[in-house]
Amino acid sequence: MLEEKIKSVIRDVPDFPKPGILFKDITPILHDHKLCSEIVDAFAEKLSESKPDAIVGIESRGFLFGFALANKLQIPFILVRKAGKLPYKKIAFEYSLEYGTAKVEMHEDEIKKGWNVLIHDDLLATGGTAEAAAKLIQMQGGNVSGFAFLVELEFLKGTEKLQQYSKNSISLVRY
Amino acid sequence: MLEEKIKSVIRDVPDFPKPGILFKDITPILHDHKLCSEIVDAFAEKLSESKPDAIVGIESRGFLFGFALANKLQIPFILVRKAGKLPYKKIAFEYSLEYGTAKVEMHEDEIKKGWNVLIHDDLLATGGTAEAAAKLIQMQGGNVSGFAFLVELEFLKGTEKLQQYSKNSISLVRY
Repeated sequence: MLEEKIKSVIRDVPDFPKPGILFKDITPILHDHKLCSEIVDAFAEKLSESKPDAIVGIESRGFLFGFALANKLQIPFILVRKAGKLPYKKIAFEYSLEYGTAKVEMHEDEIKKGWNVLIHDDLLATGGTAEAAAKLIQMQGGNVSGFAFLVELEFLKGTEKLQQYSKNSISLVRY
Repeated sequence: MLEEKIKSVIRDVPDFPKPGILFKDITPILHDHKLCSEIVDAFAEKLSESKPDAIVGIESRGFLFGFALANKLQIPFILVRKAGKLPYKKIAFEYSLEYGTAKVEMHEDEIKKGWNVLIHDDLLATGGTAEAAAKLIQMQGGNVSGFAFLVELEFLKGTEKLQQYSKNSISLVRY
């Protein structure tokens, strides 16, 4: 089963980025091209009945499978980046973190009105960044058609926060 | 011709990230899945006679075509990230910028001794970051088999700096 296979490759790193957090390191997956292609295929299959018009990938690990999936589905790929990284005219959304705030940006001409846009990141934790990506899509007149994560940390209840944007949320691996 | 096609899609953004710099924005390419797949195919074709054992991609735009190319060639993909981002045991290399320094890191168990490793980034400017990636590969006993860039700014003479690591440097687009 794909979930078990992915779990057997993900590496637990204790106390990163700070004491008490058990970090799920996905980088060993990237050494296994067969597993990578199974992951892309699994996302594509789950989207086969409602193919989005574009995929938004969140910097920077969301660029990996997000771009691969967009190419597989033959649709545009759009970057959501941390503040100050995108060069052209852009829109921004600021959101709260445990301590302080974070800001993400998207180029302003990326999404056509009415497009159904899928949001991808490698990991869903509390959902703050994915929610910010949803806001950026809506600010441009797009619809959030769903979310696709490689890993979801269920105990952080990120999908609860995201369901007001779309009830379609795919996670290949859950902890 | 592929170079002309890519050039027609790249967007010039004046005065980014600072006054006087004409930034080459590759994000419009990501909207064109056909062009994206032609780019991956062009890299793969140029590497067909000396397929590397792995590809190192430089954060974060180097994750896009780097990962796509690694999957196409069916070889491992390895991340070089800015300091503090990788969770596991890692090695670091610090290098000089115009003002100050920058540090990049790689997990310490990523490269097997004797592996021929290709370095990819979207854009070659002065070559400082690509050189740092080369150092990280050599620190782990790997060989730098070559470099692959989507865009090269020839007037900054990055390839001169890199040729001590490998004389094989591919750039699909040159300015």
